[in-house]
Amino acid sequence: MLIQEKVTVGLGDRSYPVLIGEGLLASAGSLLAGCLPGNKVLIVTNPPVRALYGKMLQHSLQEAGYDVSLTLVPDGEQYKNLTTMAGLYDAAVAARLERSSTIVALGGGVAGDQAGFLAATFMRGIGFVQVPTTLLAQVDASVGGKTGVNHPRGKNLIGAFYQPRCVLVDPATLQTLPDREVGAGFAEAVKTALLGDEALFRFLEADPAAVQRRELGAITRLVAACCHTKAKVVAADEQEAGLRAVLNLGHTFGHAVETLTGYQVYRHGEAVAIGLVAACRLAETVTGLPAEVTGRVYRLLRAAGLPVSFPAFPAAAWRQAFSLDKKVSGSRVTFVLPTDIGLYPVLKHIPLDAAIKIIGRLTS
Amino acid sequence: MLIQEKVTVGLGDRSYPVLIGEGLLASAGSLLAGCLPGNKVLIVTNPPVRALYGKMLQHSLQEAGYDVSLTLVPDGEQYKNLTTMAGLYDAAVAARLERSSTIVALGGGVAGDQAGFLAATFMRGIGFVQVPTTLLAQVDASVGGKTGVNHPRGKNLIGAFYQPRCVLVDPATLQTLPDREVGAGFAEAVKTALLGDEALFRFLEADPAAVQRRELGAITRLVAACCHTKAKVVAADEQEAGLRAVLNLGHTFGHAVETLTGYQVYRHGEAVAIGLVAACRLAETVTGLPAEVTGRVYRLLRAAGLPVSFPAFPAAAWRQAFSLDKKVSGSRVTFVLPTDIGLYPVLKHIPLDAAIKIIGRLTS
Repeated sequence: MLIQEKVTVGLGDRSYPVLIGEGLLASAGSLLAGCLPGNKVLIVTNPPVRALYGKMLQHSLQEAGYDVSLTLVPDGEQYKNLTTMAGLYDAAVAARLERSSTIVALGGGVAGDQAGFLAATFMRGIGFVQVPTTLLAQVDASVGGKTGVNHPRGKNLIGAFYQPRCVLVDPATLQTLPDREVGAGFAEAVKTALLGDEALFRFLEADPAAVQRRELGAITRLVAACCHTKAKVVAADEQEAGLRAVLNLGHTFGHAVETLTGYQVYRHGEAVAIGLVAACRLAETVTGLPAEVTGRVYRLLRAAGLPVSFPAFPAAAWRQAFSLDKKVSGSRVTFVLPTDIGLYPVLKHIPLDAAIKIIGRLTS
Repeated sequence: MLIQEKVTVGLGDRSYPVLIGEGLLASAGSLLAGCLPGNKVLIVTNPPVRALYGKMLQHSLQEAGYDVSLTLVPDGEQYKNLTTMAGLYDAAVAARLERSSTIVALGGGVAGDQAGFLAATFMRGIGFVQVPTTLLAQVDASVGGKTGVNHPRGKNLIGAFYQPRCVLVDPATLQTLPDREVGAGFAEAVKTALLGDEALFRFLEADPAAVQRRELGAITRLVAACCHTKAKVVAADEQEAGLRAVLNLGHTFGHAVETLTGYQVYRHGEAVAIGLVAACRLAETVTGLPAEVTGRVYRLLRAAGLPVSFPAFPAAAWRQAFSLDKKVSGSRVTFVLPTDIGLYPVLKHIPLDAAIKIIGRLTS
């Protein structure tokens, strides 16, 4: 049996399965045959991923009788914008997609975000399937229905909530993923374990390098557990009216790090690793989080080779970086603060000064 | 009492009211106070409509305590594209809109389609209100949640289904609308009466020029009846999976007319008028529609000064125009054919040749 794990994202008539298993990519055609209405499919991927897995996916879909086209988006967050979207609309027209057609995202979060926005907005919404090939996309980006592109003035400012019909995760694709990308995905997984799955946290602590060694069993368990927790949160709050904000744990500090370093120094997951430790430290003083929890988070991230200290910038620069964040109002910032390992965090409006003091203590 | 009519579009937790009444525009602020969560509003309008009604709306919203910005889109279907959208995203950023903010569309269908798509996709969806100022938008475009822009290769190819929180219709705005625009809206109203409201059809027949004379009572009745019928269809089939297609009555022929004349000769509603007569004629041979019905439709449209004959083009040109339509598969075209006045039409896949023969008989 190819499918080792199946997680259902429960959203009423838009519920969908996340299927996880080694070799799923080569069987995509038969796995999707039941859930795609039309016979036209447009694969959206990037050049390196196409070289590795494009033919396999294309062939599998063709074998199942689909009329398959493929289009490329540049690899990199800096190209995730309206200009690239315009090219995708042209590709959808050139492929003569119809209302019953399906967009298949093959790649990481950048390809998935844009392919999803294309699916959400072409002919006012056509079919969408995610085939994530990075650990970050497998544990995080491909569940939840956030799609979109960046505006020069803000990340993901243009987009839609749009759910896929199915997510296919093949852990074997991580064999070709650079170590650093695996680490970045691992940081998001630690975040998810910290906010909602103590057993997963212990599992990661027991052998922090198993995922980095690409052990399929460990990856499968990790991906399934993360999708399960995220699905639970998303099902309760699809459009981020309340609970869903807990998924931003580590991200307020993380975004500030990314902003100040111009998105050039840290991968998103690495910035989240730094942000997680900072959120724990802040929680120690605000919500009384035991220092022991911070220690465990710190050691787990370190053991996976992730950064945990802030780069050095003057306090004024941090102040400026936070003030660009959507979560700021007045002189207070909304932080997501952990309460314990495996328990939902709480949202607190903290004076900016307190946050910047924490950063001072954590600067490398 | 300002509100003369209220129609509810029933879409579960996304239901919304259409309020109709003379002078509503000047009271927009207090009318909307109950349904807009945040305090920032961005009005999207075009230069002529701003000159007429921009200040009144802006003032009314400011009086109610809203922080109001206004941005312009060029007037005309040819500017309804991704380039204009990019400018709207910039305007939304410049206005510092937040997730709780609201986009207010003030104008006709073009402004509404783009403002709606902006609301649907800025920060993955913010508030949206329609204040239609053309008859076409009042009877048709502002109900149903279709938003979007054109692609060089197809109308409304990029867009989303996105419902407003409220629609405010002030029939007094038609006093400043050119006669030809009133006629174009009248054609869509005839379509709606034909497909679902016999009493409205008789009302229009009794005095076809009352709307053209801008009689407020006639306009209010017309708008309320059209919104009611459209709301009923949309509530049953929000995303055009089935029934909603009846709203395309007259549009397959109409779109072909618009395509062949490069969108330069006829207003959309005028092309629909031509299309309605053609659909009736085709229905006579396909579904046995009594010729008497065709006659009534023909006379009503003529009495309102609308075109009812096809422009002359060779059969090959018509064939080409139809083949660009989304509703074509193979050599057959899907037509919406009336069955009687006030009854839902039926969908039929007709050989292209039969349709082109009808056109030959109706060429002026």
